Amino acid sequence: MSFFPSSLENLIEKFSALPGIGKKSAQRLAFYVLSQSEEYAASFAKAIIDAKLNVQTCKSCMNLTEGEYCRICTSDKRDKSTICVVSEPRDVLSFERGREYNGLYHVLHGTLSPMSNIGPDDIKISELISRVANGSIDEVIMAMNPDTEGEATAMYISRLLKPFEIKVSRLAYGIPVGSNLEFADDATLTRALEGRTEM
Amino acid sequence: MSFFPSSLENLIEKFSALPGIGKKSAQRLAFYVLSQSEEYAASFAKAIIDAKLNVQTCKSCMNLTEGEYCRICTSDKRDKSTICVVSEPRDVLSFERGREYNGLYHVLHGTLSPMSNIGPDDIKISELISRVANGSIDEVIMAMNPDTEGEATAMYISRLLKPFEIKVSRLAYGIPVGSNLEFADDATLTRALEGRTEM
Repeated sequence: MSFFPSSLENLIEKFSALPGIGKKSAQRLAFYVLSQSEEYAASFAKAIIDAKLNVQTCKSCMNLTEGEYCRICTSDKRDKSTICVVSEPRDVLSFERGREYNGLYHVLHGTLSPMSNIGPDDIKISELISRVANGSIDEVIMAMNPDTEGEATAMYISRLLKPFEIKVSRLAYGIPVGSNLEFADDATLTRALEGRTEM
Repeated sequence: MSFFPSSLENLIEKFSALPGIGKKSAQRLAFYVLSQSEEYAASFAKAIIDAKLNVQTCKSCMNLTEGEYCRICTSDKRDKSTICVVSEPRDVLSFERGREYNGLYHVLHGTLSPMSNIGPDDIKISELISRVANGSIDEVIMAMNPDTEGEATAMYISRLLKPFEIKVSRLAYGIPVGSNLEFADDATLTRALEGRTEM
């Protein structure tokens, strides 16, 4: 039985369809919206539609942008010979926060996952290969998440890049800076040992 | 620095203004919206506006409704001599789920809270007094949350109701059904002892 007025039930349903939002949270969010002004509701609604209509993927790196090409691809301060390949747009943000990396990106919008029926044609792999095929790229850095699917995706792409004879690298595994050896899992410790560097 | 396209930043901001939604969750929700169809975005936006425009408070009990009066106030199957006073619309849902209570409700839309500057005129107390003053009410049950503010609100209202010489009661305190004595706090145990009933 729907207990609340139908348009309230409908809004609760929309909120609970969002990832990580349960029924109780959805109710709280809907009540919050009702407690705000009509202007608030209008601007929230507009924000959803505007984001969906205005945001598209950069024609080169597939990152989210409002123009044809993103700010990073069009910047003349970036090293255009290096591409860092990431799974999601939010991963670009992680690298940009670090201010260390100055090359370009390529956003796959997913990782290969046979379990979820996501194959090479479902993510932006062919677009990456085209960029490399156009020349002027010296290095491709694999920066997928360090899990099974991320590793499989990195392996798959690096094999496709073989013929171009460019440098293909991946992020180092190891102990996170500032963490404690005591809490490092075995797999991470093993990788940190394997990847040890001379001092 | 805003890193994402401005309309995406704007949507993230809207989500993170919701109660209990942090910056990271807001990003995840916004990315989810972008990953869905334009129809999805349109129907989500419409749900927000519709809920805000259509849902109002019942002219009698102040519960949320789409008509002038709510389904409970207009039902001819309810006992119209008893009012259960609750703080929030969601509390009505808790009672209705139990199917035990068959009277009417009154939703205060808040509790008295000097700390948050919420006084008697900020919640729907005068509306409750008017209902009682109109006669035909035999009992008012206080069902606020069992915290300091809930208790203070119940005390304040019961004093206002004194002149009407009707029964004013409040929910019993005690051990929750199905719980374990071991985990009951002292205050609850004391109240459970005080309120013990003969078997």
